[in-house]
Amino acid sequence: MERPPNRNTLWGRILADELAAGGLEAVCIAPGSRSTPLTVAFAEHPAIEVFSHLDERSAAYFALGRGRRTGRPTALVCTSGTAAANFHPAVIEAHQARVPLLVLTADRPAELRDSGANQTIDQVDLYGDSVRWDAELPEPDADERKVRSLRTTAARALAKTTGTPAGPVHLNCPFRKPLEPVEVPGDVPEAFAETLAGRGRDGPFVDVSSGRPTLEERDVERITTALGDAERPLLVAGPADPPGLDANAMVELAGTLEAPILADPLSGVRFGSHVGVGGTTAETATTTVCGGYDAYLEETWPDPDVVVRVGASPTSKPLRNWLRDADCRQFLIDPAVDWREATFTATDLVGAEPDALISSLVDAIDGLANTTATATETKTTNDDGWLERFQHAEAHHWSVVDAALEDDRLGADPFEGAVLAAVLEHAPDPATIFVSNSMPIRDADRFGRPRDADLTVLANRGASGIDGIVSTALGAGSVTVSEDEKESEGEDEDEEPLVLVTGDLAFYHDSNGLLALERCGVDATIVLLDNDGGGIFHMLPIEEYDPPFMGQFKTPHGLSFDALAELYDLEFEYVTPTAFGDAYRNSLESTGTQVLALEFDAEASHRRREELEEKTRSWRFDDA
Amino acid sequence: MERPPNRNTLWGRILADELAAGGLEAVCIAPGSRSTPLTVAFAEHPAIEVFSHLDERSAAYFALGRGRRTGRPTALVCTSGTAAANFHPAVIEAHQARVPLLVLTADRPAELRDSGANQTIDQVDLYGDSVRWDAELPEPDADERKVRSLRTTAARALAKTTGTPAGPVHLNCPFRKPLEPVEVPGDVPEAFAETLAGRGRDGPFVDVSSGRPTLEERDVERITTALGDAERPLLVAGPADPPGLDANAMVELAGTLEAPILADPLSGVRFGSHVGVGGTTAETATTTVCGGYDAYLEETWPDPDVVVRVGASPTSKPLRNWLRDADCRQFLIDPAVDWREATFTATDLVGAEPDALISSLVDAIDGLANTTATATETKTTNDDGWLERFQHAEAHHWSVVDAALEDDRLGADPFEGAVLAAVLEHAPDPATIFVSNSMPIRDADRFGRPRDADLTVLANRGASGIDGIVSTALGAGSVTVSEDEKESEGEDEDEEPLVLVTGDLAFYHDSNGLLALERCGVDATIVLLDNDGGGIFHMLPIEEYDPPFMGQFKTPHGLSFDALAELYDLEFEYVTPTAFGDAYRNSLESTGTQVLALEFDAEASHRRREELEEKTRSWRFDDA
Repeated sequence: MERPPNRNTLWGRILADELAAGGLEAVCIAPGSRSTPLTVAFAEHPAIEVFSHLDERSAAYFALGRGRRTGRPTALVCTSGTAAANFHPAVIEAHQARVPLLVLTADRPAELRDSGANQTIDQVDLYGDSVRWDAELPEPDADERKVRSLRTTAARALAKTTGTPAGPVHLNCPFRKPLEPVEVPGDVPEAFAETLAGRGRDGPFVDVSSGRPTLEERDVERITTALGDAERPLLVAGPADPPGLDANAMVELAGTLEAPILADPLSGVRFGSHVGVGGTTAETATTTVCGGYDAYLEETWPDPDVVVRVGASPTSKPLRNWLRDADCRQFLIDPAVDWREATFTATDLVGAEPDALISSLVDAIDGLANTTATATETKTTNDDGWLERFQHAEAHHWSVVDAALEDDRLGADPFEGAVLAAVLEHAPDPATIFVSNSMPIRDADRFGRPRDADLTVLANRGASGIDGIVSTALGAGSVTVSEDEKESEGEDEDEEPLVLVTGDLAFYHDSNGLLALERCGVDATIVLLDNDGGGIFHMLPIEEYDPPFMGQFKTPHGLSFDALAELYDLEFEYVTPTAFGDAYRNSLESTGTQVLALEFDAEASHRRREELEEKTRSWRFDDA
Repeated sequence: MERPPNRNTLWGRILADELAAGGLEAVCIAPGSRSTPLTVAFAEHPAIEVFSHLDERSAAYFALGRGRRTGRPTALVCTSGTAAANFHPAVIEAHQARVPLLVLTADRPAELRDSGANQTIDQVDLYGDSVRWDAELPEPDADERKVRSLRTTAARALAKTTGTPAGPVHLNCPFRKPLEPVEVPGDVPEAFAETLAGRGRDGPFVDVSSGRPTLEERDVERITTALGDAERPLLVAGPADPPGLDANAMVELAGTLEAPILADPLSGVRFGSHVGVGGTTAETATTTVCGGYDAYLEETWPDPDVVVRVGASPTSKPLRNWLRDADCRQFLIDPAVDWREATFTATDLVGAEPDALISSLVDAIDGLANTTATATETKTTNDDGWLERFQHAEAHHWSVVDAALEDDRLGADPFEGAVLAAVLEHAPDPATIFVSNSMPIRDADRFGRPRDADLTVLANRGASGIDGIVSTALGAGSVTVSEDEKESEGEDEDEEPLVLVTGDLAFYHDSNGLLALERCGVDATIVLLDNDGGGIFHMLPIEEYDPPFMGQFKTPHGLSFDALAELYDLEFEYVTPTAFGDAYRNSLESTGTQVLALEFDAEASHRRREELEEKTRSWRFDDA
């Protein structure tokens, strides 16, 4: 290493080097003075991409979005003071959704805490229990043991962000002046600098390998036996964290068991080639992957007898309630041995990596079948028509949705759910689709038909806030558009488009995040469902109490978001539901960012949802 | 009390009633479902004003602004989840700036934590050590002891927000459904409701009276003796927290001692009738209140021998460094016995309420004079010309500033400091002036001349962030514009105008806060100093290193804020420095909100500051 001009430069460089060697690819930086040694080191580092943000809250959600898309950590840098507290909402989301995130907060030296020093707060333990690990770096010093400690800490911090479970790590980094790379005679002796190359090998100072929880054979057998004996087996795939659940293995297991998979739109199972072409047409359903259950599951639906659940708690409340009331055995598979269903009715908590376990189950059940029957009759215990019941219900639901969409295309009774249906149905393959909380994710759940297309559908379901939505989406999008692709103006065939579907409150809340479009070189199609306030409250009993309903819950704001689009130099268009399809296709084929805004009456949309639910539920298995 | 329909309604009503009885006047509410019992109760309460906000971060800073202006607590309400974490930056500012704030976070019942339940995070201890007190309310129940506990907690929470030191208090409030005021048979028996009137007397259930720290006589004597013997006594008034320091007592003490008061623009001492008419003209200065010291204090200035400091650490770095290097006795007066100067050179920490102590000192020094000399020669020990030296320096500094302003009016070398000078010089009497961090507060410090006018100058100097600036200002402004005044369209003579001076980064950072202008009925004059990025970084050595200077520090954004003004329906005008004076006067006389934007080159502004500093410092006492 070239001799750094002072100890702070030394510190920043070593940290950036170790993190890059450990695989860190990107950092989001908000400008500040105290963080200068980190900022300079990251900006100079050839292997780390720097995204500059002005609002720390948006910066943190942008980094979160990258981590959510990739399963790999992004670093965050801010100066001392409340800047660090602005990271807090995203840190909590990262904690609860298991998104790797490395938070580096610059700080003043410890003696300045609680002393009246400017821009100095107590940053130690700032995020409480929401981080996998927090540590305070030693003050920079040209001391061999301290440097080794710094290198080791970098390796540990990175490893913990992707541990079991993945999540945020916080390193507090005190620096004293000079913060800039100015020469400080004697600060870093030449002889010392010569020892800085690390271990004289490529890669990080410390290589970390982490095992994943793997069940003992007898524990796998317990689940195998239960599933083998099941008459109405069911697989439930909740939101995937981390991303990248092996959907093919899930589908193979479901096929072997003749079990439906109730696949959350965020599970990574609802969309993909494993669904099969034409798997869920309006006429019939041939796939085990189900997506309409939010509409058709209700009390009279027969109970499953054995359920295997992976991922986080499903978005669908009807599904959660149905499982709560079912008299059955429920295996919760969670590598972190956390409890992830708030009805507290699951019977077995299984601490294992889902992919490996599911593959083991496929093998074991195949083996079981081989020992008890011929290989072609792998499953003979099921109730007649258990899987078919779901497939028929799916076919009926999607025909109801199709009819509703056709009505909408003709301009009758447009409603928000139709937009989510169209967004997912007509998204290119592949695409990243980020869906806001509140109504959009619920509509995606109910109206997003399983598809044979590589759609990465994401949302912030860790804490389900409506904060940071724009930034999380753009952060996810920043992964799939490289610098080179940007330069070729979107003509690169490999480019994967980003679609964000958001309500007006979330769009307003993180409008600052729009700055990243130009600043961080992300293109998006933003579908803005504008119902002028909190449409979700129409679903709640408070609707009956006005006041305070309009003033304190629905809270119409009357904002014309085209002005916001002007601020950020976006293409902005109010489109009718009828014209949405064409506008959406055009946007996906265009470079730049287009906001397609649709105005809805939240109450009318909600009534339409109820009406369609009624139609879906009117179907009975006997009708099939 | 009319029988509440269920236990949650009961809980909300009692809490709102007790808080109102204890003096709570206003609450900022962000919409949400879990907080419904609180929202409904506050919205129904006749004595509590409700301000509705859509971004919790802005809501919290708005509440902070009210508390900073009044010294009285404002409540904050949000739903469960990351909403509560968005309050964190403002809670930290309230903690460090000692602003009363009552944070009420709705929560799901405890068993849903860490269970995968939707929108549920660990809110207990969410703000760490930044709160004076945090407690979790018991779950609502029609139980007498629990109700008494709730009433008592309300009284204690309010009292702690205004304790010594004042600050934030966090009550976490779990509720289980139904959250709306629906009838739940048997939930609140009629007989129970009849017992709910409290104690059958007006006012709160528990009256809290809190003493303030008062020194024993011998401790007062120690300070009296030191001051009486001083040859170069000095008073330093830092930012006032809480507001309302008795400036008249300070001036009286200074007069008795023939001591200058170095009065921070945020101290409540630099502006007011105690300064005296024409106290600091360009020709001479007759007042003890000094405001130009940031420009003229430097190494060769003689040391004080006894310093009395009140308030937080002064904004002026030259002042802080001069005191650090002075060989003198320094009394830090702080009622909370906290240490508030980060040079660690003060010799005496005095835990006493400043107003009472200063009055005691005035009396004691008068007494001392009476026993040692004639009553007219109260102070004979001072070095010749100690006070005069400051007064001459002040006169010289303000003549330099006047000349610079005159140049600016002629259009030569406009710079940001001239705007702060004009804003303060031409503000009506009375007015509330909120100044953003980074350069605006530094310019207000250096170029804000002491004035015989009731200007309440405020800033967020607890943690000195650039977040939440718009909202804090509008919150402060919401205090001085009542509903009645709003209805009379600003013609009310008692109305006190609000001026916000902000840089472009802070304006962008909290642009969401602008929604409060219409939603919360605040009018403001917003002076936007737009130098397209982080102008303050031109003051730092990093300016020499480009890259990364422009990309990571200065970070120009190119935003045209007129579009933002269109979004929020404000009057927006780019004005030249030459035209600023007229535009400012017009805005102050108009209703509605005007944004007066001035474009500056940050680097040129900084060079101009240096040049004026050179002129001010060229003066020597011998020249006088």
